[in-house]
Amino acid sequence: MSTILKGIAASNGIAIAKAYRLVEPDLSFSKKTIENADEEIARFQAAMSAAKSELEVIRERAGSELGADKAAIFDAHLLVLNDPELITPIEDNIKNNKLNAESSLKETTDMFITMFEQMDNEYMRERAADIRDVTKRVLSHLLGVKIPNPSLISEEVIVVAEDLTPSDTAQLNRNFVKGFTTNIGGRTSHSAIMARSLEIPAVVGTKSATEDIQNGDLIIVDGLNGEVHINPTPEIVDQYKKVQESYEKQKAEWAKLMNEKTVSKDGHHVELGANIGTPNDLKGVLDNGGEAIGLYRTEFLYMGRDQLPSEDEQFESYKAVLEGMNGKPVVVRTLDIGGDKKLPYLNLPEEMNPFLGFRAIRLCLEEQDMFRTQLRALLRASVYGNLKIMFPMISTLNEFRQAKQILLEEKDKLVSNGVNVSDNIELGIMVEIPSTAVIADQFAKEVDFFSIGTNDLIQYTMAADRMNERVSYLYQPYNPAILRLVKMVIDASHKEGKWTGMCGEMAGDELAIPILLGLGLDEFSMSASSILKARAQIKNLSKAEMEKLAEQVLQLQTTEEVIEAVKKATL
Amino acid sequence: MSTILKGIAASNGIAIAKAYRLVEPDLSFSKKTIENADEEIARFQAAMSAAKSELEVIRERAGSELGADKAAIFDAHLLVLNDPELITPIEDNIKNNKLNAESSLKETTDMFITMFEQMDNEYMRERAADIRDVTKRVLSHLLGVKIPNPSLISEEVIVVAEDLTPSDTAQLNRNFVKGFTTNIGGRTSHSAIMARSLEIPAVVGTKSATEDIQNGDLIIVDGLNGEVHINPTPEIVDQYKKVQESYEKQKAEWAKLMNEKTVSKDGHHVELGANIGTPNDLKGVLDNGGEAIGLYRTEFLYMGRDQLPSEDEQFESYKAVLEGMNGKPVVVRTLDIGGDKKLPYLNLPEEMNPFLGFRAIRLCLEEQDMFRTQLRALLRASVYGNLKIMFPMISTLNEFRQAKQILLEEKDKLVSNGVNVSDNIELGIMVEIPSTAVIADQFAKEVDFFSIGTNDLIQYTMAADRMNERVSYLYQPYNPAILRLVKMVIDASHKEGKWTGMCGEMAGDELAIPILLGLGLDEFSMSASSILKARAQIKNLSKAEMEKLAEQVLQLQTTEEVIEAVKKATL
Repeated sequence: MSTILKGIAASNGIAIAKAYRLVEPDLSFSKKTIENADEEIARFQAAMSAAKSELEVIRERAGSELGADKAAIFDAHLLVLNDPELITPIEDNIKNNKLNAESSLKETTDMFITMFEQMDNEYMRERAADIRDVTKRVLSHLLGVKIPNPSLISEEVIVVAEDLTPSDTAQLNRNFVKGFTTNIGGRTSHSAIMARSLEIPAVVGTKSATEDIQNGDLIIVDGLNGEVHINPTPEIVDQYKKVQESYEKQKAEWAKLMNEKTVSKDGHHVELGANIGTPNDLKGVLDNGGEAIGLYRTEFLYMGRDQLPSEDEQFESYKAVLEGMNGKPVVVRTLDIGGDKKLPYLNLPEEMNPFLGFRAIRLCLEEQDMFRTQLRALLRASVYGNLKIMFPMISTLNEFRQAKQILLEEKDKLVSNGVNVSDNIELGIMVEIPSTAVIADQFAKEVDFFSIGTNDLIQYTMAADRMNERVSYLYQPYNPAILRLVKMVIDASHKEGKWTGMCGEMAGDELAIPILLGLGLDEFSMSASSILKARAQIKNLSKAEMEKLAEQVLQLQTTEEVIEAVKKATL
Repeated sequence: MSTILKGIAASNGIAIAKAYRLVEPDLSFSKKTIENADEEIARFQAAMSAAKSELEVIRERAGSELGADKAAIFDAHLLVLNDPELITPIEDNIKNNKLNAESSLKETTDMFITMFEQMDNEYMRERAADIRDVTKRVLSHLLGVKIPNPSLISEEVIVVAEDLTPSDTAQLNRNFVKGFTTNIGGRTSHSAIMARSLEIPAVVGTKSATEDIQNGDLIIVDGLNGEVHINPTPEIVDQYKKVQESYEKQKAEWAKLMNEKTVSKDGHHVELGANIGTPNDLKGVLDNGGEAIGLYRTEFLYMGRDQLPSEDEQFESYKAVLEGMNGKPVVVRTLDIGGDKKLPYLNLPEEMNPFLGFRAIRLCLEEQDMFRTQLRALLRASVYGNLKIMFPMISTLNEFRQAKQILLEEKDKLVSNGVNVSDNIELGIMVEIPSTAVIADQFAKEVDFFSIGTNDLIQYTMAADRMNERVSYLYQPYNPAILRLVKMVIDASHKEGKWTGMCGEMAGDELAIPILLGLGLDEFSMSASSILKARAQIKNLSKAEMEKLAEQVLQLQTTEEVIEAVKKATL
């Protein structure tokens, strides 16, 4: 009998492959006295060499497939494994105290880790992290337990994990990972966004995938319906192969729209853009016929490293994206860090409610050196394409004015130093805080455009943390209150001759698109993989009819009523 | 030279008295080997008897002044001090291991605490807490350090603390505490609200009061200007005595308005109510001429105890308040727990963003037994006065409908059991979540009234945790976005013939009152101590003029512009 797990469909498509568990192994052991110290030392040395050979393979693989910077961390691990200052005390501990190798290893490395962590020195703290990783690896060999090494994957697999962090996904070999499923997360969690950006099927929030699935189980990830089949019967596999085929056909149909503009049945043009995180995502945007980058999340430039990116490094990334888009609009969001996204080297204080805390523009207006560096990099890159800059988490006009002032100062400085800067950079804001939506008419007098960030706007408007499963039922994109705020923003921009985009998950949502078209949204920015489908949908909608639908749903009382009305109007 | 600390004026008035530090003492010590075990045991026994006599005094004082239930905890502590199963191992530890008394005590009690805490038994976990408290007390005697015992205060003092928790304030002897000052907190923190409810001057958020002030220092707390003077010169004391006198005169002037209705210069009546936490606050409401209870926070019934309050216990409290108000309206808010207010016995999971989490009505709709018990107590009490019930944290119409349905079910059950229940209970909601303000027109068709909770509404609308000092500048009651939401709610209620009150801090704010009067707010609910002052202010305002002011400020862009406009219009 095959087992079926229900979860949240996070990324479209069907994947069929063997399971690969990306799960922390159990490395617990007992402290024991041993009889024969020499034998125990030999056991320890064998584990050390096994760890060494393993790391050498990983390093080589990482070097060729992920790049030299990702491989460097494994060089550091190899250095630790060869360090006599670490090895000798472990062997002495076995010899003198008749302690088993596991305990000797752990006691000694714990001592070094504690010592290094207490030093007020970033370099030594990283060494502590290296020792911790290496200890785990050697322990795994002592205990005969397997540590997952995602960079060693060499056949097609479906990754099974509690959750996938950005650093997990950075290590995945994209050629072999055909899909994934996780215990936690929702449609807007990092793992879901990542799956859509990689264009692989994913089902998240299954609650028990890591419990129910073993390494090597045959798995079907049904990203269309949010189901995971474990060890399905051959009949079910055949059925799914057919679904997969027809989905591929559907995609081929959509692909014909690649070079078309996005125009409604009655001739209204809207712009379909993509949300990206790095220049690597450009190919997906172009392959899917994106008309713009509606959101370039610059925080990835700042993450997974130990210091701020330099101005030149940023300049190169921004330039690459602008050139790659070849004159099409690129909306860059300035650094949105804080909240659930931390930078270890910034030393931000812990907050009781990080989502209501010191983040994004609030942080940038205080850490002005960091902010000015980013703005300079953007200004210098502006001559390579059609750059638009937007500020995140704006809640008051004063914040926008301050940020704009800083930008103008940096521009003046660059120009007076003879640096070329575009004179046509539009300056906008994210609308993701309720206060800003409510007084959008005032903002519209001063900004060039709005981009509605629905992920945050919804969670603040409903006062419900979208990552908190106990209240996630209140994360309601179709709630009439949300739709009214969206209308306020769009109307306010049009009244002043400005435009409004949307870069939250809602912009690519099949049920939301008809309403948004009706409300007059000018630009829809979504996962690149959703663009062609959305274009096909909009081709079949009449703007005039959707205006009537929008008018109607704004007067409804609940999310459920709105969904029903949309289905009725568009079926 | 006297030192002056700047802080936030949290409760009006001037207090002059000696400092009483309510600060956790330093109970650190070193582990030592001792020479003479018998002497050390004698030292331990002396500390034990000193702790015992101290506890006996505290218990007696607590019994006569705070009631038997508060005294019971000290009985439990005395039991611990007399328990041979605890004492013998400590003395053995001294004797056998030549350990100093401090270490022997700590090692032994730590073992018991760990053991009891791991038991899945509420009773044993409380015993662990008792042992922890007793250990501290005995340690303090061993180390010759004083633990503050607020219930032993017997002369007029100003309490100096890092912060005051509800359980701290419950132990304070209100007759002797003339004022207080804390390091942290703002105008809406618990300690500030408590000070206003006790009608004693307070300055919070001084950052360093506990560092700069020693026990016995002469202190002036200037709750009018947010200043604390440490060891002031006699001249300054004289000056402040004059300020105190003129403030008392001003209060006497206001007191003449006690039995008057609250009417504007041009004859418009509004209702001034009070926010209360327990039946003990009733006297303050009546002494200050409150026309209603605009917010009865029922969570205090649930706090500082180890199990849910029974239906009868709740009934008695609700009845006392309803009878005490003698037919005047009493708006009771159902349980608003979660977020920053935890109940240990409910075992709620830790949340990453508790303010956006599983709290208030969200919790009550799930924990229905608890909710139904409260509703039954309220329904039974309804015949003793003019009860109105409101639900907190409502963000969707479905939540209101569900809560109302549960109330009606309980009412039907009571009635069919022959219990008397009032037929005129108005049913309303708190408007403290942006979504609810935005679709207030839809809610107004179904609720009897709104009460705007500005503390939360502002923090969600601005996406800024009001307790987080780094973003507290964004907690902006006068932001035009907030004022527009308030207007939406008031207009929506009036259109359906309903009324709107406000029970957040803003309702008692001198600068907000003119705008709120102009917007048509029907009921203002505030700290009882603010009522007479607000009544005097409104007597001097013209509703018609304030309507113009309100219209004007709704079109302004920033908080600063609004404040300026109000000052200009009302000076």
